[in-house]
Amino acid sequence: MDSTPGRTGLWLVGARGSVGTTTALGALAVAAGVAPATGLVTELPEFPGDGLPRWDDLVIGGHDVVPTPLPKKAEALAEAGVVPRTLVTALATELAGLDGRIRQVDEDVFHGPQAPVAERIAVDLGEFAERHGCARVVVINVSSTESPFRPGPEHRDPESLERALRGPRPVLPRSSLYAYAALRAGCPFVDFTPGAGVRLPALARLAERAGLPWAGSDGKTGETLLRSALAPMFTARALHVRSWAGVNLLGGGDGATLADQAAASSKVASKERSLDGALGYRVDAPLHIDHVPALGEWKTAWDHVRFDGFLGTAMTLQVTWQGCDSALAAPLVLDLARLVARAHEAGERGPLRALAFFFKDPVDCAEHGLAAQYDALLAWARRLRDPAC
Amino acid sequence: MDSTPGRTGLWLVGARGSVGTTTALGALAVAAGVAPATGLVTELPEFPGDGLPRWDDLVIGGHDVVPTPLPKKAEALAEAGVVPRTLVTALATELAGLDGRIRQVDEDVFHGPQAPVAERIAVDLGEFAERHGCARVVVINVSSTESPFRPGPEHRDPESLERALRGPRPVLPRSSLYAYAALRAGCPFVDFTPGAGVRLPALARLAERAGLPWAGSDGKTGETLLRSALAPMFTARALHVRSWAGVNLLGGGDGATLADQAAASSKVASKERSLDGALGYRVDAPLHIDHVPALGEWKTAWDHVRFDGFLGTAMTLQVTWQGCDSALAAPLVLDLARLVARAHEAGERGPLRALAFFFKDPVDCAEHGLAAQYDALLAWARRLRDPAC
Amino acid sequence: MDSTPGRTGLWLVGARGSVGTTTALGALAVAAGVAPATGLVTELPEFPGDGLPRWDDLVIGGHDVVPTPLPKKAEALAEAGVVPRTLVTALATELAGLDGRIRQVDEDVFHGPQAPVAERIAVDLGEFAERHGCARVVVINVSSTESPFRPGPEHRDPESLERALRGPRPVLPRSSLYAYAALRAGCPFVDFTPGAGVRLPALARLAERAGLPWAGSDGKTGETLLRSALAPMFTARALHVRSWAGVNLLGGGDGATLADQAAASSKVASKERSLDGALGYRVDAPLHIDHVPALGEWKTAWDHVRFDGFLGTAMTLQVTWQGCDSALAAPLVLDLARLVARAHEAGERGPLRALAFFFKDPVDCAEHGLAAQYDALLAWARRLRDPAC
Amino acid sequence: MDSTPGRTGLWLVGARGSVGTTTALGALAVAAGVAPATGLVTELPEFPGDGLPRWDDLVIGGHDVVPTPLPKKAEALAEAGVVPRTLVTALATELAGLDGRIRQVDEDVFHGPQAPVAERIAVDLGEFAERHGCARVVVINVSSTESPFRPGPEHRDPESLERALRGPRPVLPRSSLYAYAALRAGCPFVDFTPGAGVRLPALARLAERAGLPWAGSDGKTGETLLRSALAPMFTARALHVRSWAGVNLLGGGDGATLADQAAASSKVASKERSLDGALGYRVDAPLHIDHVPALGEWKTAWDHVRFDGFLGTAMTLQVTWQGCDSALAAPLVLDLARLVARAHEAGERGPLRALAFFFKDPVDCAEHGLAAQYDALLAWARRLRDPAC
Repeated sequence: MDSTPGRTGLWLVGARGSVGTTTALGALAVAAGVAPATGLVTELPEFPGDGLPRWDDLVIGGHDVVPTPLPKKAEALAEAGVVPRTLVTALATELAGLDGRIRQVDEDVFHGPQAPVAERIAVDLGEFAERHGCARVVVINVSSTESPFRPGPEHRDPESLERALRGPRPVLPRSSLYAYAALRAGCPFVDFTPGAGVRLPALARLAERAGLPWAGSDGKTGETLLRSALAPMFTARALHVRSWAGVNLLGGGDGATLADQAAASSKVASKERSLDGALGYRVDAPLHIDHVPALGEWKTAWDHVRFDGFLGTAMTLQVTWQGCDSALAAPLVLDLARLVARAHEAGERGPLRALAFFFKDPVDCAEHGLAAQYDALLAWARRLRDPAC
Repeated sequence: MDSTPGRTGLWLVGARGSVGTTTALGALAVAAGVAPATGLVTELPEFPGDGLPRWDDLVIGGHDVVPTPLPKKAEALAEAGVVPRTLVTALATELAGLDGRIRQVDEDVFHGPQAPVAERIAVDLGEFAERHGCARVVVINVSSTESPFRPGPEHRDPESLERALRGPRPVLPRSSLYAYAALRAGCPFVDFTPGAGVRLPALARLAERAGLPWAGSDGKTGETLLRSALAPMFTARALHVRSWAGVNLLGGGDGATLADQAAASSKVASKERSLDGALGYRVDAPLHIDHVPALGEWKTAWDHVRFDGFLGTAMTLQVTWQGCDSALAAPLVLDLARLVARAHEAGERGPLRALAFFFKDPVDCAEHGLAAQYDALLAWARRLRDPAC
Repeated sequence: MDSTPGRTGLWLVGARGSVGTTTALGALAVAAGVAPATGLVTELPEFPGDGLPRWDDLVIGGHDVVPTPLPKKAEALAEAGVVPRTLVTALATELAGLDGRIRQVDEDVFHGPQAPVAERIAVDLGEFAERHGCARVVVINVSSTESPFRPGPEHRDPESLERALRGPRPVLPRSSLYAYAALRAGCPFVDFTPGAGVRLPALARLAERAGLPWAGSDGKTGETLLRSALAPMFTARALHVRSWAGVNLLGGGDGATLADQAAASSKVASKERSLDGALGYRVDAPLHIDHVPALGEWKTAWDHVRFDGFLGTAMTLQVTWQGCDSALAAPLVLDLARLVARAHEAGERGPLRALAFFFKDPVDCAEHGLAAQYDALLAWARRLRDPAC
Repeated sequence: MDSTPGRTGLWLVGARGSVGTTTALGALAVAAGVAPATGLVTELPEFPGDGLPRWDDLVIGGHDVVPTPLPKKAEALAEAGVVPRTLVTALATELAGLDGRIRQVDEDVFHGPQAPVAERIAVDLGEFAERHGCARVVVINVSSTESPFRPGPEHRDPESLERALRGPRPVLPRSSLYAYAALRAGCPFVDFTPGAGVRLPALARLAERAGLPWAGSDGKTGETLLRSALAPMFTARALHVRSWAGVNLLGGGDGATLADQAAASSKVASKERSLDGALGYRVDAPLHIDHVPALGEWKTAWDHVRFDGFLGTAMTLQVTWQGCDSALAAPLVLDLARLVARAHEAGERGPLRALAFFFKDPVDCAEHGLAAQYDALLAWARRLRDPAC
């Protein structure tokens, strides 16, 4: 048992999925010095990263409903070309050790009374922190996209929520149930999925009361990342976008979940919000998400932009993005863990708007341009490091 | 003859080309209130544009080696779908009037002794300013791309240059000859082509002595615009670009000129400088420029980016840009005319680094990210408007 | 009034739409010798076209629910870059004359009892043939895509159909109502839309009895054309297609109609049939059709094919097609008019399977490869010309 | 030592390259029944393949200048995602055995007198045939692309060639030297590269005299394959192609060789011949080949086609092909080995025009359409099987 004071815990909801596994393997590899810092924003030379948790002070645990152990999942990801086989082999022991810190949760518990489930999660978080001597534990939801959720009166304030939770029926979507348990356990929460998370008013209020920072939602890893880089080009050049159509072909994992139309419309809505925000006006933007199992761990997005130039001349831009979701998401999860832990240490509370750079649907943030979001992130990180600046 | 004090002249070198004609037609249309401000950066709501020349105070003239009058060229551009026929018809009289302010220059004059040519140009500029009551005239080179130029000892300082110019042989490439004449006539100069322009040391020194501002070079209207929007996305996300290949298919006009291999390599060099600058490291970046007459006034650029994500996972981005060069360039020419005129009025001198936003190969500028360039432009424009800010 | 014996009539249902207008203008231009034969298959040097109606023997008329006269519609198409303005101007008189042969039909008539409507259409066809001395009139439906239609017992045989038609309620979708009227008037019928047309058993039987040839359905003008050229490449090379995703962005006209989900699914079904047919196995093929008004008369289709090579190596093909539907459809309509007229003259009856080359969803045809369809077309045309071959 | 009568030898020139290794591994896997027939044309259900050599009667050997043994190269290909690791592991012993049949050749021998080299190669072929009881050995050149070769008077007829070969200096490019040795040893020869091979008049004459069949050249594995499928679509539809631009980004292997400009122009020439042949007219077709090491074993081709529809309407098609050269080439090499062996057995001699389907630059073949080439291949294979048909 290790108990170095000052360790930072990262608790992954969905720890055995593709994103969770890549995050875990990557954290081990970076800590061991056997992988470069590619994809890690907090490791950029220009990033004001002093004071962030060190890689070898980061200890990862989590929950999952899936029993497949990390080493086996990592093998599968290596077979699919997502992670290098050499890393999986070299870090086999460490991966198995990390897997021992993941607790399997039965799918059924989410469909009955939720108060005991939240209690159970909070206890797990507490034990994890204590066992590993973590000064704090950041909980990050990297599980599959959940169906869109329509809040009711019981989600308006903490009291109504507590009352409803004592009833026999499920009250919260899974992302919010984990958020609730995290807040109860005094842990900052980050929603990396498009779920409701802390965004329900009752939970946002709870976070405020508990003095906890939180962030979300929906990690920006592909088409929306591109859009947030490209849309400001059109606005800064006064080029008028007339339509911006898109199609996303997703392989396994999230693809399967999103084949469920309702879930897809949740993601679609967050993408559209982002586009309108970035352009500053509503634009005709048909968007489709298809599950294409043959793509495996990969996704392809095609965007078609029809815009007007001077005197109304019609022009087009097309973009095809072929990416691996896990390899794009995992380093952001690690960046978020470090930044949110540091924010917690520094006493920040409530939604961390400066983290908009990482999200498709950033909470309370009007800025959808990527470069501006990056500048805001750097400025915030500088202030975290040196409050006078 | 009109002589309102406070008018601003815009003298286009290559006034009867596609860019020149679209610029002229557009300026007339915007001044007449019959075209929207699409593409005009200085007309954006957020742009601090107070104090810039008003559209109806802008008077356009120029030089060209081509005899085809503007109305006829504008007809051809309407036929090609570059500008709306309705505008060409509605502004036929004004176009013909503007054409009367364009002087045809014989191609041959550039190949003999250049001192008299410069003298002739300077006289033309002076007469134009006087006749139209222009407080100042901004000279902008929108002619075809010229062959790469290798400076010699005679281009090192003003004295050597003056001496060489008195000789019988041509000393300066055309862009620099016009720049020299403009400086002699007290006019700010902008090189919208990849030419040498004021960048020869002798001319930069002359501009300094004359207290004149200048800007350049090579208007950023397509592939490089995209690259300057996309490259910062890769750097801010710590994604490692391994290769960035590109091909440009250009129709008429510049396409024909660039078919000349030497000229193409001039443009290619400026594009590569831009990419390396934006990424911060050298990248494998094969680039081709082809003349494809069947594309007419249009150009298509395809870029293929191969980048590494976390743990080295290979991903790709492809971009296809289908644009009309003239419709992209013309509003920038008008923006530059207004901004450089205002800078001149405000007493700015030397290279205007804040205009990097407009150029593929901005003079003396280390910042190649589009959003950062835009921020710098806005900050500069705010200071022009209100020196205290 | 002209009455040359041997003239061939072409009656367009939807004559004032984009396809109808381009067909009419093109026929006039080709007859007048002022347009090249681009797009006309029956004019290819290798095509055995002897015996087909001559261009100046073709007389066009039609129906439409829209009042906008042809010359005005042609102007709009010229503005949109679909047809050359010079042709519209040169053939203004001829276009106006042709418009005089189009009868406007009230939209309402289709929603009440249909027997009298069919009667009215048959009378119009007869009068048209007589007035212009047409030996035969080919009726081609180029109107908008109609909603998918589910046949009932009354569509099983001619007798049931006749009985139902005498009732007060509409019995046939519009494409089939026109087909019925055409057959009644002794005219061959071609459905260029994805409608039911003659494919209802009752109508197919009627055509058989009347000894009339017919063809359809859904003109192959874009994505499906490409697919029928590319799919045989994969099969001939034994490359295994794992997924073939597609998205269609359609501007005006058909785009607006297809925005209606039901109508879209009709088109989608015919595309999928075609793909499975061409590959010889079912493939994961998500397909979307979006209406993007900003595209005007243009459409863009993007296809993404994921296929396996030797030993299962994953590869991809992407295709982007940017076409103008009317310019692709119109010459096929003219080819079909000539070929079906000739088939009628030669005594062919029933579905013309050899015309599969022209259709997305060819009637009774197992061959979906484009080259094989072309070979079959040529062989059939040779037999039409010379029955001994 | 095995000596079953009726075995067929396949001798690969460049046996340890990516194509050679994938061919060898694939042949072993297919013979062992552990890989599907994906990519093998001769295994298609419709292919008249009776009488072709059976997979377990095929014995592979070869030459290479490279010492890396096959198992190690196969490991590298598995790491690169070209072949499945499971196959490499399962067939490790067999691969090592096959590697024992590859003779390493010193690079230097090709730069001195060539008669003894040819003699040596012929002896190797004879010994290989005898040792493995091969009724015949097909020699296939799968080595790197060689520089374009300009034939001289010594390549005009066999006698001049023999005389020149006795001199001290190299006379033949490597592909032709191997072809010469193969013919001398009584072996059919196939050039899978764009080299001169048997196409020099002296060698074609030698093959004729020896009664040997041969085939080539330049395996059609990517962009040209696509072009031969797409070009007939344009011609059959009478759509006029105005330009067809292309760029090829090639990773390792051939990419490195082709970076050598001369070698690239050899490949470029064969691609252009193919395009003009398929369209039937010359078209503006700029083409580039770039070596992009970051692509590894993969290649990406982008084609941009600008074509005219009816009345001259401008449209475009873009295609992006992302393939793995070895996985595309290897099954064709195996198909060719079987087909050429069978042709030899059946007494065919001279260039096998019916194999045009497999080549970018098919010898003596006017047919460049893929479907027509496939039909011709099937017809020929049927005749091989049953001469009466």
